[in-house]
Amino acid sequence: MPVELASPERREPATPAPPVSPVTPVSLTWTRPHLLGLEHLGPDEIVAILDSAENFVNLSQRTRKKRSVLAGRVMVNLFFEPSTRTRTSFSLAARRLGADTLDFTPGGSSLSKGETFIDTAKNIEAMGVDVMVVRHSSPGAPLLLSGHLQCSVINAGDGAHEHPTQGLLDMFTIRRRKGRLEGLTVGLVGDIAHSRVARSNIHGLTKLGAHVIVCGPPTLVPRNITELGVEVSDNLDAILPRCDVINMLRIQFERQRTGLFPSIREYARLFGMDSERLRKAKSDLLLLAPGPINRGVEITPEVADGPHSAILEQVTNGLAVRMAVLHLLCGQPTE
Amino acid sequence: MPVELASPERREPATPAPPVSPVTPVSLTWTRPHLLGLEHLGPDEIVAILDSAENFVNLSQRTRKKRSVLAGRVMVNLFFEPSTRTRTSFSLAARRLGADTLDFTPGGSSLSKGETFIDTAKNIEAMGVDVMVVRHSSPGAPLLLSGHLQCSVINAGDGAHEHPTQGLLDMFTIRRRKGRLEGLTVGLVGDIAHSRVARSNIHGLTKLGAHVIVCGPPTLVPRNITELGVEVSDNLDAILPRCDVINMLRIQFERQRTGLFPSIREYARLFGMDSERLRKAKSDLLLLAPGPINRGVEITPEVADGPHSAILEQVTNGLAVRMAVLHLLCGQPTE
Amino acid sequence: MPVELASPERREPATPAPPVSPVTPVSLTWTRPHLLGLEHLGPDEIVAILDSAENFVNLSQRTRKKRSVLAGRVMVNLFFEPSTRTRTSFSLAARRLGADTLDFTPGGSSLSKGETFIDTAKNIEAMGVDVMVVRHSSPGAPLLLSGHLQCSVINAGDGAHEHPTQGLLDMFTIRRRKGRLEGLTVGLVGDIAHSRVARSNIHGLTKLGAHVIVCGPPTLVPRNITELGVEVSDNLDAILPRCDVINMLRIQFERQRTGLFPSIREYARLFGMDSERLRKAKSDLLLLAPGPINRGVEITPEVADGPHSAILEQVTNGLAVRMAVLHLLCGQPTE
Repeated sequence: MPVELASPERREPATPAPPVSPVTPVSLTWTRPHLLGLEHLGPDEIVAILDSAENFVNLSQRTRKKRSVLAGRVMVNLFFEPSTRTRTSFSLAARRLGADTLDFTPGGSSLSKGETFIDTAKNIEAMGVDVMVVRHSSPGAPLLLSGHLQCSVINAGDGAHEHPTQGLLDMFTIRRRKGRLEGLTVGLVGDIAHSRVARSNIHGLTKLGAHVIVCGPPTLVPRNITELGVEVSDNLDAILPRCDVINMLRIQFERQRTGLFPSIREYARLFGMDSERLRKAKSDLLLLAPGPINRGVEITPEVADGPHSAILEQVTNGLAVRMAVLHLLCGQPTE
Repeated sequence: MPVELASPERREPATPAPPVSPVTPVSLTWTRPHLLGLEHLGPDEIVAILDSAENFVNLSQRTRKKRSVLAGRVMVNLFFEPSTRTRTSFSLAARRLGADTLDFTPGGSSLSKGETFIDTAKNIEAMGVDVMVVRHSSPGAPLLLSGHLQCSVINAGDGAHEHPTQGLLDMFTIRRRKGRLEGLTVGLVGDIAHSRVARSNIHGLTKLGAHVIVCGPPTLVPRNITELGVEVSDNLDAILPRCDVINMLRIQFERQRTGLFPSIREYARLFGMDSERLRKAKSDLLLLAPGPINRGVEITPEVADGPHSAILEQVTNGLAVRMAVLHLLCGQPTE
Repeated sequence: MPVELASPERREPATPAPPVSPVTPVSLTWTRPHLLGLEHLGPDEIVAILDSAENFVNLSQRTRKKRSVLAGRVMVNLFFEPSTRTRTSFSLAARRLGADTLDFTPGGSSLSKGETFIDTAKNIEAMGVDVMVVRHSSPGAPLLLSGHLQCSVINAGDGAHEHPTQGLLDMFTIRRRKGRLEGLTVGLVGDIAHSRVARSNIHGLTKLGAHVIVCGPPTLVPRNITELGVEVSDNLDAILPRCDVINMLRIQFERQRTGLFPSIREYARLFGMDSERLRKAKSDLLLLAPGPINRGVEITPEVADGPHSAILEQVTNGLAVRMAVLHLLCGQPTE
């Protein structure tokens, strides 16, 4: 080879390295074949996933990111709603563990030939699939499939129900930055009613001892949400000083019904995060957002790119969390 | 790793394990570079593929499903008609043998820039492709390509002409379940005229000594089909008691011309399979369907999911058959 | 295995094996993290890429085409314009070096949810991407991204600006066929104004000592193009006898504005290449075309498939050049 290779000059990452969180290893025998939501997981199971993800974060920071614990296994993304980041994150997570991946999207598929949802999944499974990652607009679709399939099913978002790996990566990011979850006050801000991310955050965070405040326009916060053990507010400025973490939910423009929602400008004024409002918060406030964010609506650009924000860390952590989930669900050393 | 992994509790597969078929190994030197149809294969070549597939079925049932006999080879899916199952099945088959795979679909491609069909294929081939899997609405398109390419070409369905790997997987499924093909009576039911699956089944089954009856509405059964050595019927109830196997073809709703076809309700009454009609059949009737099925039209749900049906086994077997074909066409140990 | 495998009978490739070019190895320490264009590369850097590509051409001609120098690395295709060949070529190049690849296309993505171009790229990068291959209709889009990302960025075509790997593969093909670049006269024919391929060819070829003539309808040749050190002509017949190489640019039917362009018939008469015109050229004229070609417009079929044409060789060489670029940008042996 006539050319010598030197390390290209690269800038250092803008995000400061997060403090290593003090992980207490949990000894747990994982037995669940599926991950359908955080509502029915025990606290020790959630901690087991977070602990396992710590190992994979370190792996992903190396140049050789690959392991072969899932070599020969097949993961399928079965996405009935468009998605870039979640689908891609699952694919990369699976491949880093050595698995093969396939994307199945309804367009150009058998569904247009009159096949049912369950038939489609069973046919895909019959090709030797080990784990199916499902996104669907109907709450409960992944649960329904899990009753008809032998393979593992992971819920990647079902309507306004749950999005467990997003909840887990939010919790993982908080724990890495804050060193703990117990005793923290976490505000979930925005359209609570239509947010599967909110629901998974609520279940996961309360199980691990965090205090959760949901905050949004009254039309977008279901009244009975207090049954999940959360505090309710419609005044961000009032709760902000008490929060250690704020998770800014996306406005689901595409899911909105007219009438429930104030104008965008009014929403941004009351529930958006900008530099001025940030001054009322704790100095070490951690700011999360599941993305993709609408810059200037939920968060102004200078805040999204500022020191409180962990938005890109969440993406990176999402990969580690998904590797942990895949490994726990189908990494058992059989044969 | 803080988490112990136990084997997740999994249900047993609903489908009973098929009896191991008594395979008589055939000593054959494979020389064909392409698989364009079953019409021009010799019986020994078909048997060679089926025998080879037996090995791969066993491989696919293991957790580590992967081999590396095609490592470094490249398989391209060149699909001009939408497909989920066939395209996916070829991809997984190739990857289990260690090959790289690429999907090429006309949308968003050079074809919209005015390039010809052959130019497109030659350009793809020039990237170092070893095998091209082609689906096209025109009968003979894969044959045409095979005359212009150096790489292997596999027909994955060309109009109403042939779909050889589907024919092979049907035959493979029958042989696994029945232990033989010779002497069996196989009914192909439905739209014979527009079915490439029917044509590949007819060629393959008759070559190996099965008796084939094609059965459908007279408008959907070409008169000259008897030249292929099959019996013709328009009365399913009349032939059913004689059949060892029934292969229920899909109604190609999307391919139908008006006028040729009775109403859906009428079709289902005359040619659909339900529990009542099944009582007139042999007690060990084997029921195949290439899928995706229109539940309640060709087959009622309770029959599709019942003990006679091998629908999902067909999908699993399809993978093994395609691995066998890929291995025979381009697995020679050169270099 | 009951079946013996013999080498299938295959035709010999139609294209004659090109002469091995006398490569003088260049000792150069590669330091650039990005490949944004040929305008700012030094001649020694261009030669380094071409030399490195020689190694990969040989690799691609073997049955086992795979190496693992990029194992664990991730390459993403981020294509905002449709492409088959370039996207596929980069994917195959990366996989032959052992990298994982992902395709990101705007359809069905976060962009439709209101995310900005840069946010999308940063989010993808946060998943642990090592190199991002970008195609965009806006000149400078890859440069813009390179300022916001830590990973390597490769320009795969930005508006009418540059398409550096196409320029490199054209140069590589010329050098392989002619044994050198210095002192050759190369004609670029067609729509110079809208062609990023022309611009990359001009920068690369002139840096390595070739004489470049751009030739096209006056409305499609920018007046100030002479500032790049090229000769301008609107008469193909006049310059043809002096040319060692002719690179026939595609007519960008989809990019044309009305009024700039003569009729297709008129264009083909004045600037198309057919057998008759070819008789006025040097007997060893080398004919390139970036493809996909419009047969009968830029080039008649008998010329495109004739002995002067290196069109398919260009595709094969493109893979080698892209392997070289990927290896130089992110193949450094860290860890």
